[in-house]
Amino acid sequence: MRASRFLIATLKETPHDAEVISHKLMLRAGLIRKLASGLYTWLPLGLRVLRKVENIVREEMNAAGAQEVLMPVVQPAELWEESGRWQQYGPELLRVKDRHDRPFCLGPTHEEVITDLVRNELNSYKQLPASFYQIQTKFRDEIRPRFGVMRSREFIMKDAYSFHASQDCLQQTYDVMHKAYCNIFDRIGLAYRPVLADTGSIGGAFSHEFHVLADSGEDAIVFSDGSDYAANVEKAEALAPAGERPAATASLTKVATPGVHTIDEVCKALSIAPGQCVKTLIVLGQADDEGRQPLVALVLRGDHELNDIKAEKLDGVAAPLTFAPEERIKAELGVGTGSLGPVNLPILTLVDRAAAHLADFACGANEDGFHFTGANWDRDAKAARIEDLRNVVDGDPSPCGQGTLAIKRGIEVGHIFQLGTKYSEAMGAKVLTENGKAETMTMGCYGIGVTRVVASAIEQNHDDNGIIWPAAIAPFQVALVPINMNKSEAVRDACESLYQSLLAAGIDVLFMDEEKARLGVMLANTELMGIPHRLVVGDRGLENGEVEYKGRRDAESVNIPLANAIDHLKAALN
Amino acid sequence: MRASRFLIATLKETPHDAEVISHKLMLRAGLIRKLASGLYTWLPLGLRVLRKVENIVREEMNAAGAQEVLMPVVQPAELWEESGRWQQYGPELLRVKDRHDRPFCLGPTHEEVITDLVRNELNSYKQLPASFYQIQTKFRDEIRPRFGVMRSREFIMKDAYSFHASQDCLQQTYDVMHKAYCNIFDRIGLAYRPVLADTGSIGGAFSHEFHVLADSGEDAIVFSDGSDYAANVEKAEALAPAGERPAATASLTKVATPGVHTIDEVCKALSIAPGQCVKTLIVLGQADDEGRQPLVALVLRGDHELNDIKAEKLDGVAAPLTFAPEERIKAELGVGTGSLGPVNLPILTLVDRAAAHLADFACGANEDGFHFTGANWDRDAKAARIEDLRNVVDGDPSPCGQGTLAIKRGIEVGHIFQLGTKYSEAMGAKVLTENGKAETMTMGCYGIGVTRVVASAIEQNHDDNGIIWPAAIAPFQVALVPINMNKSEAVRDACESLYQSLLAAGIDVLFMDEEKARLGVMLANTELMGIPHRLVVGDRGLENGEVEYKGRRDAESVNIPLANAIDHLKAALN
Repeated sequence: MRASRFLIATLKETPHDAEVISHKLMLRAGLIRKLASGLYTWLPLGLRVLRKVENIVREEMNAAGAQEVLMPVVQPAELWEESGRWQQYGPELLRVKDRHDRPFCLGPTHEEVITDLVRNELNSYKQLPASFYQIQTKFRDEIRPRFGVMRSREFIMKDAYSFHASQDCLQQTYDVMHKAYCNIFDRIGLAYRPVLADTGSIGGAFSHEFHVLADSGEDAIVFSDGSDYAANVEKAEALAPAGERPAATASLTKVATPGVHTIDEVCKALSIAPGQCVKTLIVLGQADDEGRQPLVALVLRGDHELNDIKAEKLDGVAAPLTFAPEERIKAELGVGTGSLGPVNLPILTLVDRAAAHLADFACGANEDGFHFTGANWDRDAKAARIEDLRNVVDGDPSPCGQGTLAIKRGIEVGHIFQLGTKYSEAMGAKVLTENGKAETMTMGCYGIGVTRVVASAIEQNHDDNGIIWPAAIAPFQVALVPINMNKSEAVRDACESLYQSLLAAGIDVLFMDEEKARLGVMLANTELMGIPHRLVVGDRGLENGEVEYKGRRDAESVNIPLANAIDHLKAALN
Repeated sequence: MRASRFLIATLKETPHDAEVISHKLMLRAGLIRKLASGLYTWLPLGLRVLRKVENIVREEMNAAGAQEVLMPVVQPAELWEESGRWQQYGPELLRVKDRHDRPFCLGPTHEEVITDLVRNELNSYKQLPASFYQIQTKFRDEIRPRFGVMRSREFIMKDAYSFHASQDCLQQTYDVMHKAYCNIFDRIGLAYRPVLADTGSIGGAFSHEFHVLADSGEDAIVFSDGSDYAANVEKAEALAPAGERPAATASLTKVATPGVHTIDEVCKALSIAPGQCVKTLIVLGQADDEGRQPLVALVLRGDHELNDIKAEKLDGVAAPLTFAPEERIKAELGVGTGSLGPVNLPILTLVDRAAAHLADFACGANEDGFHFTGANWDRDAKAARIEDLRNVVDGDPSPCGQGTLAIKRGIEVGHIFQLGTKYSEAMGAKVLTENGKAETMTMGCYGIGVTRVVASAIEQNHDDNGIIWPAAIAPFQVALVPINMNKSEAVRDACESLYQSLLAAGIDVLFMDEEKARLGVMLANTELMGIPHRLVVGDRGLENGEVEYKGRRDAESVNIPLANAIDHLKAALN
């Protein structure tokens, strides 16, 4: 490609509304432009990267035996009513009425559409397993789109769905997809980890997320140093502390703590560590027959964080997890949130495993301005149940039983689910089994955020000068930069000849052939755009039959013989 | 591809709601399935065809110097307000509000988005011309979606836009695009014609449509037998009849015509030919300062059809063309529509060239139940202006001055426009010229209905057995059909070996390897799916070292040596 015929839309300044590095660099390198909140146009440079990602995904999906289809963006509400998601899905589902006032939505995902297709097209167990995928535009009306294409409203997703006559068969395809995902991220050249994950609103029993490791990642993922165990912190089990709970040694003492509300303030006022006090959080419980949601107390150690996902799955707790309004707590418990505690608390009280292991702990006294010290379970406070309520922390024992956990940040780029029969049951997707009985199919689903992969590759691969593309998804493999081409016939001839040779060798080259471009600008642009290899051609080098080569990660350029330039590049590309 | 791993979703019965052959065959061959009115899922077989069309389009757009981008489906209303189309565009524009109640639409076309991009990214005449294209999902909320993907609501379009500093430069790119379109349809292998066209609601001055010729086409296109002239009937000028108008010979006579309303009834009652009477149509005129739209009469020969597009462009006529309500005609003219005529008609009267050439004609007497015979222009009736109001008909002289016109049916698959400054002016898209002045860019736009191309290829290429794909877009080039593979090791071995050899030769082959499939069903399916070449392998042939070959258009199959099968196919594919 000649730069004179290609939109190089680099920016010197970083746009002010970009927070993360990938967003900044995608704007600065001219990969994307914002159309409106959460809506981006892919410029020619960005689209080249996106297509390379798409192609790798497509090849691996095909190799995994999935068949490509293309489903509509706009989906009829009826199907979502069948699955129950029309009601369940929040405002992220963009609902729209057509000219005849019929309700539709823009698809954030396509379980309903594919299940409808499959229930109509497949009717025998002999046709199973069957996997279908598409690479297609999705829409989620995020309340706060941000980080560019990392969390945009319109985005491109590869979504695949598999159908099975048995759980065994699902497990086999799930394993094949797991491997295909590893192949994809290996080929793209990303440092990533598959981790155990929660299944969220998609439903189903078993799932893995694929995370690109990056400090800017929105998700915390945990690893064992003693095994392969890896999980999203949402999912990672926090084991009970080892050994017996220490015996009580202190007596329950009420202490005036005027103006003390937070754990930090309590610790300061009482001169104790956060791990020696508990916090009591009040959430809404499952509705009773009259629709009334009782209050439920969740008790954690002061230094631990509540895990919402774990909490909302507990018996007696409403999902999604909802904190009780302050007024209701005051009215029913007679105390503000700053002085709550498990002693004599007249509501269902669920206690985290670590908190339940404390002796002689401090807590709110359920009386504004007072706390207890020397509180002990059983003697002073009752746990209705002891549960896993918290996020694991660095140094916790691994739930697999081997090693301790460390926490890293990750960007979720893929997610695979064993859906089970959630959709097929609701929508009556059945096949005839070997003995002629109609049985509900078992399903899996498998997503990759294709546009997000591009951003995550940048989060993981950049320096002060710009992007450093992994070879497989670089928009161009080589930049060819002339020095003063408009003044030197020799430079022009050498570049034109190199350009043709590179094209003939099947190498994706960007020839910076703009007549009046300044060398410094061209060099800065090739770095910013992250092109992995660069040749610079000038009169001085040509006098010695040489050109300059620099790899994007190299500190310095080296002179190489012009005659060897193509071979040198071919070697560098392999 | 092995059929055992591929969704062959052929249907024996033609679905009842399919009207045209392409829709029937796309359903029957398993290319698409309907999700909802005007919304279709592309099945694996159909998607293979669609991708081949896309790739040809992409290659030719790249060769024409256009740069691929990808713009969002969802577009903010503000941009459409800037161009004025938010108000102008009818209910085909699907409008939607996001969770923050901000207005958006699903893009039926992307002039606003690309113009916004270009005004921000390009600022110098040196960057022009610049052309951008995308292959992307569009939505038009058709009032009556029909004919499958031919007139669907969601569809895939290739839309390209070019930007220029001068009309000359636009003309050059327009010519390049015209050639690129010819290359595309040539490569796909369709019989098509570029024709002069009206510019419609997109705006602009000059445009060509590309029509695939097919009897089922929705558009009438006209050709001269004496030149290259070709136009959409909407656009084709109807010349005035040659020579002077004959002199009046009859006197104006009022005739009672009770119950006579239509031209047919008038001709029967008066024993005259439709070409010897005129019909008078009342439409709304352009609004005056108070917003009132006067009535306007359009007078045509009884055997001619009004051309709405021509009429609504006339001075004094409101656009879009709107027929006056019967009550208003009665109230203001004192007569019903069945007895209208140009004699003593007290409103602006525009007369078609052919009608204005009549002498001694019949017409309504502007009195219910009465007509005139022997009417003559000037003497009895006044034409305010003589205009081109009608559709041309078979045998009309060509407006180019050479030959006569013939009419064929066509399916519009492409449309190129010289937009001029309609969008760039409204949206302030300017560049600095050589002398440092900011000037509005001139634009072109260029569309191809990618999904519609697939349907039109079928309209033009099918027989009683199904689709006959042009080679370049066939989902598979070769079908490999075994006879009793589950019983014959020799057949299985020969097929497996042929399959591997075909794949190795880079030939797209569908191996009908399903163990229990019946031969008749497999053969019918390969014909229905339109696979251009077929090899049938059976024990009887193998005994003689032969397999059966049949081209999709061949009446009979021929035996060829197994050893030559690959070479035979390679030759057939070229």
